Amino acid sequence: MASSVKMWRLNFSGRESFLGKLQKTYFNSKRKIVSESVPAKIQTTSKTDEYKPRDERKSFYKLQEERREQAERCVLINCPPKINEKKFIKQLSRHGNINNYFFYESFGMYAVVEFSEKDSIGSLREATNIPHSQHEATVPFKSRLLSIKANSGNQSFSQPSVQCLKQTPIGVNELIQKLSSKDSVDQQLYSLTEEYQLTEENVCLRFLVCSLLKDIAAAYFPECIIRPFGSSVNGFGKLGCDLDMFLDLDAISRGNIKQPAGGLSLEYQMKRTSSERSATQSILAVIGECVDQFGPGCVGMQKILNARCPLVRFAHQPSGFQCDLTANNRVAMKSSELLYLYSQLDRRVRAMVFSLRCWARVHSITSNIAGAWITNFSLTVMVIFFLQQRSPAVLPTLDQLRDLAEPHDKCTIEGNDCTIVSDLSKIQDQGNTETLEHLLQEFFEFYGNFAFSRLSINIRKGKEQYKPEAAPLHIQNPFEPTLNVSKNVNNTQLENLVALCQESAWLLQKGGAVGPGHNRDTPWGFAALLQPSVSQAARSKGRRRKTLEPASKRMKSLLESLKSSKTSAGAADSSKKNSSTKPH
Amino acid sequence: MASSVKMWRLNFSGRESFLGKLQKTYFNSKRKIVSESVPAKIQTTSKTDEYKPRDERKSFYKLQEERREQAERCVLINCPPKINEKKFIKQLSRHGNINNYFFYESFGMYAVVEFSEKDSIGSLREATNIPHSQHEATVPFKSRLLSIKANSGNQSFSQPSVQCLKQTPIGVNELIQKLSSKDSVDQQLYSLTEEYQLTEENVCLRFLVCSLLKDIAAAYFPECIIRPFGSSVNGFGKLGCDLDMFLDLDAISRGNIKQPAGGLSLEYQMKRTSSERSATQSILAVIGECVDQFGPGCVGMQKILNARCPLVRFAHQPSGFQCDLTANNRVAMKSSELLYLYSQLDRRVRAMVFSLRCWARVHSITSNIAGAWITNFSLTVMVIFFLQQRSPAVLPTLDQLRDLAEPHDKCTIEGNDCTIVSDLSKIQDQGNTETLEHLLQEFFEFYGNFAFSRLSINIRKGKEQYKPEAAPLHIQNPFEPTLNVSKNVNNTQLENLVALCQESAWLLQKGGAVGPGHNRDTPWGFAALLQPSVSQAARSKGRRRKTLEPASKRMKSLLESLKSSKTSAGAADSSKKNSSTKPH
Repeated sequence: MASSVKMWRLNFSGRESFLGKLQKTYFNSKRKIVSESVPAKIQTTSKTDEYKPRDERKSFYKLQEERREQAERCVLINCPPKINEKKFIKQLSRHGNINNYFFYESFGMYAVVEFSEKDSIGSLREATNIPHSQHEATVPFKSRLLSIKANSGNQSFSQPSVQCLKQTPIGVNELIQKLSSKDSVDQQLYSLTEEYQLTEENVCLRFLVCSLLKDIAAAYFPECIIRPFGSSVNGFGKLGCDLDMFLDLDAISRGNIKQPAGGLSLEYQMKRTSSERSATQSILAVIGECVDQFGPGCVGMQKILNARCPLVRFAHQPSGFQCDLTANNRVAMKSSELLYLYSQLDRRVRAMVFSLRCWARVHSITSNIAGAWITNFSLTVMVIFFLQQRSPAVLPTLDQLRDLAEPHDKCTIEGNDCTIVSDLSKIQDQGNTETLEHLLQEFFEFYGNFAFSRLSINIRKGKEQYKPEAAPLHIQNPFEPTLNVSKNVNNTQLENLVALCQESAWLLQKGGAVGPGHNRDTPWGFAALLQPSVSQAARSKGRRRKTLEPASKRMKSLLESLKSSKTSAGAADSSKKNSSTKPH
Repeated sequence: MASSVKMWRLNFSGRESFLGKLQKTYFNSKRKIVSESVPAKIQTTSKTDEYKPRDERKSFYKLQEERREQAERCVLINCPPKINEKKFIKQLSRHGNINNYFFYESFGMYAVVEFSEKDSIGSLREATNIPHSQHEATVPFKSRLLSIKANSGNQSFSQPSVQCLKQTPIGVNELIQKLSSKDSVDQQLYSLTEEYQLTEENVCLRFLVCSLLKDIAAAYFPECIIRPFGSSVNGFGKLGCDLDMFLDLDAISRGNIKQPAGGLSLEYQMKRTSSERSATQSILAVIGECVDQFGPGCVGMQKILNARCPLVRFAHQPSGFQCDLTANNRVAMKSSELLYLYSQLDRRVRAMVFSLRCWARVHSITSNIAGAWITNFSLTVMVIFFLQQRSPAVLPTLDQLRDLAEPHDKCTIEGNDCTIVSDLSKIQDQGNTETLEHLLQEFFEFYGNFAFSRLSINIRKGKEQYKPEAAPLHIQNPFEPTLNVSKNVNNTQLENLVALCQESAWLLQKGGAVGPGHNRDTPWGFAALLQPSVSQAARSKGRRRKTLEPASKRMKSLLESLKSSKTSAGAADSSKKNSSTKPH
């Protein structure tokens, strides 16, 4: 799974190797890369899903801190398409040792260059000009987003062209083709994960965009941090996903209350607002205006300041990210940490979540736009809940994670106990060895058969509970127990999900049976579940059936069809009873 | 004229004494002040009109630079009303030597404290808290605007209360009373100037507000400067006048075009705009937003970005200034320098301008709001032009100032030659010794009798010229010769001015005659010209006459009335023929 050319590698390796890398000079790095960068390797990127033993994995915050520090040492440079990589790196290395770099395309070609020392950026900036144009004016705001131009002749542009790392996932049709060539459903799910997951480079780029944005905010709030949260860091991000960020101002008041001398104390005079919310709105209004007016390549600014959680939204063209910036979103950060932790506990978790997110998206169960659809977060919590139900359990409950926490993990946000263990090595593996194919099958049957009308999904207890309110789908918010994360979902959308689970259980049973031996041109296994035509048929069939037969009758016929086709299934299903017969 | 208590004194004194002041410790300063600060001296401020020999006066730019540097070493502190001055200064002096300080009132009591070294501000800020309130939130933007609070008991609040320096001028009625007690019209004009002119402290406060605003702008444009222009620096500013500022970004591109290495050159990627104007609009939009949302005490923000010269306008409550911020307003800055130079050449210039500005304002010839009124700038140019007409001339022409310029004075703005000499000692005094009373009388007669319908006022040549266009009043813009600075003035306003000049010439002749011997309770001399009732009478009389008699007839009767009342006039008028008989 690991690629042979590692231009960029940082996390998921031990601290030692990270530090070791810091000490390498640019020349080591360059020799290695230039000799190996041939066009055939353009798609070669380093992946984030190498599973180390639990005690070698970094805690969420340690990893975030390392990435944040790394981003501070990076610059983003727009390059001409045929730049001479050797000359480019040689020139930049005049300003300091280069740890790592990579190229990618997004509205032009860009390079991310990571120096060993932050000071090198200062030196680089001193050698950087302000652009002059006869016909245009510029807003002379200097950032770490630069352009490189060739001055004399075109000796600096040459063959071979540089290796550009992709920052977007392959399309569904290509994916279906790829998955169909695999030998098992398990391989299909791992392959999908590998295709879709964020690369090391993409994560680095995300932290770099946060860092560039921090430079803007730090102009007024020097101690601030812009932190990515959600998909970018929770272990379940798909290439091309939005970049959610929040502005963390907590460090500003840290160390406040200096001892007054002589009976007099000094305070900053500051603009007062009626609430935290309106202070947040003020701050986001200004940062939004700055990004809009000064941020090169920042387009389509929307200030959505009257939302429940005020935010500014814009597209960052140089990275290709759609960005959302909010402020002081601590619970969302804690949720990201929780998902990250679950994603790291077992390799199958990410494979399940990536695959089911893809499946849900293809069948319009989830959507890019807000509405009554199930969200990726809700779906992920459903997968976690399902994996908590297995016997032995694949994942621990949130209460178990809390009970393993050490004193320094203690965390309370807005009155809610959000404590979870940060040291992954403290969590014991329960020894569940079910195959992915089997788990997937069980997932579809579990939710195709779940008493949504009565029960709530609760990953804190790892047990269904009676619904406290009448929402069609009730999933308790992990850190805000009075909230339902799927409050937005209406009956139609829930019914669509149930019908799709039922159909998929049936199709997987049937399609999984065809197995590795069959014609690889015909989608099979999980690939068969991703076909749009199948989905439409399933959806319309589901709706038609709904009007003709009661749900119980539908379930029975489905289960019978499953049983009758089961004999040819390759996957182990010994533990199926665990879910289908599990009492509520 | 100089006050005995000099808490604050900087410019108009030689460089040596300025540097000498920098070396003084806080303790010297404190001892001096505390011993002398008794309530009786609250109104005591240092004045800016001490005339040094020309070769001891600083050039405009040198003075601006000194004030700007001084402002960087200042903080503005909101104080409780009964603060113990001694304790206050003792506490602040822990962070470094204090050069100077003063107190004033504006929506509460404030202190401006000037440290010897800029580093002291950093130390002070480290000891400064972020305010905490149960019921309010704050935008945690840290500036040099602080508050001081008493912590324990109220030992820090005590008697005697501190001396607050006034930052606004006295009212017209008080002024009239004050002037009436003087012994001559000349004394009246100098006294008015002394009352109205900016104090050293007020100028310091103006530069401090610029410096605070620069801190905001410098967040994005580290090399930027915010420069005051217009009344705040041109030598003719009245206490309480607006603070006009411009954002100077020229230093950003200075030193640009670094030698590229290896055939590649680096450029900052910057937001591009279609024109300089739209870049300016972008920058002002952001700074306006920042000031509005983050700037403590900044209220009433208006972004007037579609004006010919885009600007943001707001009130800065801690200083009491109405502020206008524009960008890259080089010509306006040069005009300020020119007026400053004229203001420094002869003590009578400022006395004439201050008095005539006051007179025009009282009679609604000028106005605070934009419209067809004559502006203070136009009126000042008219005074300068008049003083160029005297024989010998009181003031040199703009062409003469250009001819005296040295190579380093060379200046071209937007294609116009804006060169003027900066070294005041190079300008020779022509030996004109006319009294102010006489000059004032001549001024009224000159403009009461001027052929505005045919002629243009041109201070570059120091001669009337034929009007190039049909505007009622044509005053050539000193540095943009194709523009008319009084383009806005309509016929009615010009007629009001002419009528008022005629009436004032008559009144001064009549009222000046009463002289020093008469009852001091009755306004006389220049004070008589400031009475609103007189003005209304004059204006309505002027209008009535206009409809009854032709202008020539009105002039004749006025001149006759002047001649008949002249015998009792106390002032020398030997050179009156110079203006009244001057051919066009």
